[in-house]
Amino acid sequence: MKSFIKGNLLAFLVVFALNLQAGDQDPLPSWHESDSKSQIIAFVEAVTSNDSPYFVPEAERIATFDNDGNLWSEQPMYFQLFYAIDKVKEMAPDHPEWREEQPFKGVLEGDMNAVMASGEAGLLQLMMATHAGMTTAEFNASAAKWLKTAKHPRFNRLYTEMVYQPMLEVLQYLRDSGFKTYIVSGGGIDLVRLFSEEVYGIPPEQVVGSQIKKRFELRDGEPVIVREPKIFFIDDKAGKPVGIDNHIGRRPLAASGNSDGDLQMLQWTAAGEGPRLMLLLHHTDGEREWAYDSESHIGRLDTALEQARELDWVVIDMAKDWKVIYPFQLED
Amino acid sequence: MKSFIKGNLLAFLVVFALNLQAGDQDPLPSWHESDSKSQIIAFVEAVTSNDSPYFVPEAERIATFDNDGNLWSEQPMYFQLFYAIDKVKEMAPDHPEWREEQPFKGVLEGDMNAVMASGEAGLLQLMMATHAGMTTAEFNASAAKWLKTAKHPRFNRLYTEMVYQPMLEVLQYLRDSGFKTYIVSGGGIDLVRLFSEEVYGIPPEQVVGSQIKKRFELRDGEPVIVREPKIFFIDDKAGKPVGIDNHIGRRPLAASGNSDGDLQMLQWTAAGEGPRLMLLLHHTDGEREWAYDSESHIGRLDTALEQARELDWVVIDMAKDWKVIYPFQLED
Repeated sequence: MKSFIKGNLLAFLVVFALNLQAGDQDPLPSWHESDSKSQIIAFVEAVTSNDSPYFVPEAERIATFDNDGNLWSEQPMYFQLFYAIDKVKEMAPDHPEWREEQPFKGVLEGDMNAVMASGEAGLLQLMMATHAGMTTAEFNASAAKWLKTAKHPRFNRLYTEMVYQPMLEVLQYLRDSGFKTYIVSGGGIDLVRLFSEEVYGIPPEQVVGSQIKKRFELRDGEPVIVREPKIFFIDDKAGKPVGIDNHIGRRPLAASGNSDGDLQMLQWTAAGEGPRLMLLLHHTDGEREWAYDSESHIGRLDTALEQARELDWVVIDMAKDWKVIYPFQLED
Repeated sequence: MKSFIKGNLLAFLVVFALNLQAGDQDPLPSWHESDSKSQIIAFVEAVTSNDSPYFVPEAERIATFDNDGNLWSEQPMYFQLFYAIDKVKEMAPDHPEWREEQPFKGVLEGDMNAVMASGEAGLLQLMMATHAGMTTAEFNASAAKWLKTAKHPRFNRLYTEMVYQPMLEVLQYLRDSGFKTYIVSGGGIDLVRLFSEEVYGIPPEQVVGSQIKKRFELRDGEPVIVREPKIFFIDDKAGKPVGIDNHIGRRPLAASGNSDGDLQMLQWTAAGEGPRLMLLLHHTDGEREWAYDSESHIGRLDTALEQARELDWVVIDMAKDWKVIYPFQLED
């Protein structure tokens, strides 16, 4: 109840207190009563109550959410990489040369150390081999099928089941409060779009992400869009505010991330006028999910955590703040 | 009542006829009764009536509109170029070298032939000198001020007053029918965003356009986004379907353009399943607006007109189909 408010704290607290008395239904039932929860609710009340000095018109209520590690899990590796690996195995019969070439050899032999040893260049090769060289329709069909069938190795659940119930509630609460919710992902834009509407309630046009180059052409008179094996835009770190500016053209009123890759998006959000909500999810739950931060190769969280604490952004402690992690853990 | 319908024409005509009997208010009052008007209304009825065999769920009702020459005029040159010219004059005192350098010299001396003789490279120089090298906030402030003050040489009206009343009605009619309306412009995305909400009812996040490269940075600890003098994406011709795929991630159900630069967007739209609406505005009105097509250097319309006629897309004849051109011509 501190960070996001610049100005008249007292007036704000009154608004907040009045609202508590109203006895509305709890918009965040999977959250323990905590500072994080109070701050989210207080912020939403402050910018949406007609009589609040911090009222913001609906058109400007933009909320941006990172995806990997923020709306769904990202361990033991980004889920998109699982897709690339499964796809390499599927495509392997047509690529006998892969049996001798890293990183493909490592994938086919289940030797993830060899894959990782191929470095960023190797991972890029994997991505391009599996995400480019086909039409958008072909990619979408392949990835949609994978999303409906592939299972996560630890939980034996569809990847789309490994989304965070408490964050689904935040998304819904914001939309119920007149916000437009967006995903702003460092991952590929098109994979997320295949499930964002069904799983998050976020339509494809409200997904921002990294992109490869695409090319329109007529094939036998039929228009197609072809995915080319070239990077077009990386929507990560300093790329996130740029991706937001390109796609949305407005500064977010609220932003939510979990790693140093989200720092600039949070800074850009925080620098706007009036109250802003900056959420940083700290993965502290090694039992129910994963515990990692500054030492992790995936979703590394270091500088952003320091800044969040220094600037009083809302740091969500997964272990302490959340009653459940995934929707399938909800009691009937 | 022909082109866009694939399949059961009879069932469709019945739906259309039933609706006419309902005697609803005319959604397109600035349109003469014409084939164009009937086709637009019949299409909207076909995809939105619950009992229509061509019903399309609201989430998929995406309509994309070109801007220059389609929602506002584009003669005697693109309005964005007027901005660049006015800006060069404003900036000239800080650039004494421009007095000797084309295309700047031509601009300062009012010699548009010299400017045009500098070709595409010269125009690009003009654009970069006036649209890049500043923060997004600085550009937006400058362009917003221009939009509020600069007047068109022929009509002595604000550029934002030179929008087409009949097209404003189409935009509103589509939105009232559950469509999300988008601009997909070959011009710069950020200039359009400054007036699209107020003038067209289209929020900034529903504007797609050409883009220069942007860079996020901290200036004395304050986050800014800087506009760099490099092309990032050209949203014209084959770029339009790609821009649509990047920003929206769905194929349009309806698309509207006026030049060969819109052909691929119309082709991409037409290639979708079920009924689609393809509108092509033909500038035939030399008295009230301008008359031009295959010989024009601006908004050249040649192949797209041929294809539209061949494929029975809706070709709008500005002189014959529209009662008025601009909102300021409406009778009180």
